[in-house]
Amino acid sequence: MIRVSIIGSGNVAQHLIQVFSKVTDIELVQVFSRTKESVSHLIPIDKITSNFSELKAVDLTIIAVTDDAIASVSEQLSFQNQFVVHTSGSVSINAIDSKNRQGVFYPLQTFSKSKEVDFKIIPICLEAKNEKDFQTLETVAKSISNVIYKVDSEQRKALHIAAVFVSNFVNHLYQIGNDICIENDLSFDILKPLIQETANKILRLSPNEAQTGPAKRKDTQVINAQLNFLKNDNQKEIYKLLTKSIIDNGKKL
Amino acid sequence: MIRVSIIGSGNVAQHLIQVFSKVTDIELVQVFSRTKESVSHLIPIDKITSNFSELKAVDLTIIAVTDDAIASVSEQLSFQNQFVVHTSGSVSINAIDSKNRQGVFYPLQTFSKSKEVDFKIIPICLEAKNEKDFQTLETVAKSISNVIYKVDSEQRKALHIAAVFVSNFVNHLYQIGNDICIENDLSFDILKPLIQETANKILRLSPNEAQTGPAKRKDTQVINAQLNFLKNDNQKEIYKLLTKSIIDNGKKL
Repeated sequence: MIRVSIIGSGNVAQHLIQVFSKVTDIELVQVFSRTKESVSHLIPIDKITSNFSELKAVDLTIIAVTDDAIASVSEQLSFQNQFVVHTSGSVSINAIDSKNRQGVFYPLQTFSKSKEVDFKIIPICLEAKNEKDFQTLETVAKSISNVIYKVDSEQRKALHIAAVFVSNFVNHLYQIGNDICIENDLSFDILKPLIQETANKILRLSPNEAQTGPAKRKDTQVINAQLNFLKNDNQKEIYKLLTKSIIDNGKKL
Repeated sequence: MIRVSIIGSGNVAQHLIQVFSKVTDIELVQVFSRTKESVSHLIPIDKITSNFSELKAVDLTIIAVTDDAIASVSEQLSFQNQFVVHTSGSVSINAIDSKNRQGVFYPLQTFSKSKEVDFKIIPICLEAKNEKDFQTLETVAKSISNVIYKVDSEQRKALHIAAVFVSNFVNHLYQIGNDICIENDLSFDILKPLIQETANKILRLSPNEAQTGPAKRKDTQVINAQLNFLKNDNQKEIYKLLTKSIIDNGKKL
């Protein structure tokens, strides 16, 4: 039985609390949350604390707070020489105060409070400073997911940027598609099968093989007509820049 | 029984030939292809012609060729007063030579020759100039898909642009994610569950509700660190512009 505590009450913390509550070989010992109400629907109230001095030493303390707060939270821990990890894609392992043994437990997924996720297929990227701690992390990660990667801090930085492109920026392109539909009395639903198929395609084809569209074909007539149609400045600039980048990419290959 | 002929041998034409061959209430009468070999694996050779004068008048002639070629192909048809449609998102219904009755049959999907698609869930956007022709189109479309929309030429233009954003541009962001992974000795596979979840999320949440990431949080520390990490000029510019657009979008709401 590995004893785990979680610090935080945001999206990632809430999803972790939910999934660890269901796992038999993990004991979820405590949750730290400034406001007990925000997690009291997920865990018995006597396991919630909003006082750092009440947090006990356990096998693994997971700090799931905003990037800026990781360092100061890890300083406020009252215990020492314990294993403490954060869950951030962009923060170095060394942000954890070195009075404890440092590590990272980064689930590469987009979490929304209102949407359940299947943890089994979420890649979890692990980092620790010694083999024994890494094994603890691996055991915990394997209890909730089938997809575990060893990723160092520099690689994780790159991975987080890649994730911003394929998730946050992709979602913003969905937003633009949505806005264009609404302006033209069309339901955004028309686009949903295309969105699904575009995401499914790269399970079997490389992004380069899967690329289609006017930019890929260098179809300047369609490109100019579409640019002309767009009135919103940001949309126009994004259209121009992504078209240029697709064309430049074709030249490299 | 509705008699249909298809002109073309590209991605869209090949997918249409395949799906219409399987439907019982449609008779696929002829396929026009400049090189018979490119479609001979899909339809008996005696139904293929590369001579416009051999194309017979049928209930519905579908021109599935590149946008630029639609007008000239429709001029070369030897029959008149028949119902002729194209399959393009960006071309007006009037590109079809007016010696025949004009229409549009636009399947909103990204087609790759090497990947099969499930036509039943592909939205097909229809346009015709009279009710009887529209009904013919609707019957044909319903024989292969469950999702039919009436979309006029102006709306279709907007829809095609929206499709470029949510499919072609999205795929290019996958390409960038892929490139960043490879440069950092990471498998692109790590990103695939995130890509799937990002596409699945907007089935239940609006793109605005689903938006996460450093730009949404206006986390300038992460944004600047990530910009600093990116060395490729196009990647840097795309990062800047999409971040700006997400932040601007937050201000509007």
